[in-house]
Amino acid sequence: MWRLHHFALCPFSRKLRLLMSEKGVPFTLEEENPFAMREEFFLINPTGRTPALTHEDKDITLADSRAIAEYFDETVEKNPMINGTAAGRAEIRRLVALFDENFWGDVTAPLLSERYAKRVVARAAPDSRALRDAMRLADQHLDYIDYLVDHRRWLAGATMSLADLTAAAQISVADYLGGIDWRGHESARGWYSVFKSRPSFQPLLADRVDGVAPPRHYSDVNA
Amino acid sequence: MWRLHHFALCPFSRKLRLLMSEKGVPFTLEEENPFAMREEFFLINPTGRTPALTHEDKDITLADSRAIAEYFDETVEKNPMINGTAAGRAEIRRLVALFDENFWGDVTAPLLSERYAKRVVARAAPDSRALRDAMRLADQHLDYIDYLVDHRRWLAGATMSLADLTAAAQISVADYLGGIDWRGHESARGWYSVFKSRPSFQPLLADRVDGVAPPRHYSDVNA
Ligand SMILES: N[C@@H](CCC(=O)N[C@@H](CS)C(=O)NCC(=O)O)C(=O)O
Ligand SMILES: N[C@@H](CCC(=O)N[C@@H](CS)C(=O)NCC(=O)O)C(=O)O
Repeated sequence: MWRLHHFALCPFSRKLRLLMSEKGVPFTLEEENPFAMREEFFLINPTGRTPALTHEDKDITLADSRAIAEYFDETVEKNPMINGTAAGRAEIRRLVALFDENFWGDVTAPLLSERYAKRVVARAAPDSRALRDAMRLADQHLDYIDYLVDHRRWLAGATMSLADLTAAAQISVADYLGGIDWRGHESARGWYSVFKSRPSFQPLLADRVDGVAPPRHYSDVNA
Repeated sequence: MWRLHHFALCPFSRKLRLLMSEKGVPFTLEEENPFAMREEFFLINPTGRTPALTHEDKDITLADSRAIAEYFDETVEKNPMINGTAAGRAEIRRLVALFDENFWGDVTAPLLSERYAKRVVARAAPDSRALRDAMRLADQHLDYIDYLVDHRRWLAGATMSLADLTAAAQISVADYLGGIDWRGHESARGWYSVFKSRPSFQPLLADRVDGVAPPRHYSDVNA
């Protein structure tokens, strides 16, 4: 069985939890706080980052959520998530990068640092300007999702893809940390609420970390 | 013909110049300074980042260097760069991510910001502590390359792959900016010098940007 070394509020770990669940790949979870920089974990992933994937029987260690997502899309037929023409696949991967890098850098990472790492790990006060910036940028990203959803059935085209899983994973962490104001984003909200009611999403919505509680609407599938 | 919107010291653009050249895909270069945030460029790539790729005849726009690399590996047979078993391909992509994210974040991005953006764009003095940190981390990354090259023929295994192109592209920018001290890294230096003499590398070594000159050894293929 696969063992996913993950952190509950790590959006890259969440992307793989969604992906493996949608593809029907069984796995167990092993909690790893990458901010604790545990020496043993660097032996599993030399970058020290979550997620990483090991297997109890096979001598294989995988790291980097995009590399792992490609691996499962290549090896497990069910619910292809990087599918279509070469140009269509490039569009899926462009959006995966956009959410993993730009949404992450603009929104999720500053929220995690201000509302989780500072509060729980360093016991310092959050920087309200950094929080305001993150929320302003979240609003721009939601505008882009509104635009995509108004023009396509799913973010990258006619079918659900890794782009949707990636965006939903990032948003779910930002939403947990109170960084998402859904007002004025009906299209994005509609797209996200479909996700929230999928079975693959339920374990994510049930997760809690010590010291930071999500807003009430976070796990409400009708909100 | 493809048109690559690139910036001379952008390692992600350089990765694609190497890849397209190795795969024999003809292209023209269009210089774009992403730090200038030109509005028209946001219409080509909504993130405003280099590289992006357009085509004079086809209605297609590609962005994100990993998405584009996958596109060419899927559509052009010559010199496959993401090849092998699923596990081998995952290893290639793990290393691509490591160099694109960790080497970039630890080394190339701080060097670009201190030695190029600050000097040329903002006319401010570089922060010597940030430079020292970047060079210390560069040394650790070279240790890792030494280790890989001592255990494998190429970084990800028996054949040259996108991992090699990605690492060489990052290192070439760091080397241009004076951030690489090769002493004590004979294995990494040997691996890199093979690259430096490949035809695909010559245009990169000939590039210069205003205001920052590379060290003497930078374009010396015997150094
Ligand atoms: N490219 C990686 C990024 C993973 C990543 O940044 N993980 C964060 C947690 S959400 C981490 O481990 N940060 C600690 C660090 O970078 O040292 C992936 O897609 O898996
Ligand atoms: N994931 C992107 C990263 C590209 C990137 O970060 N490009 C830099 C130049 S080297 C850039 O455009 N920076 C300006 C910005 O982020 O606003 C890729 O692989 O193409």
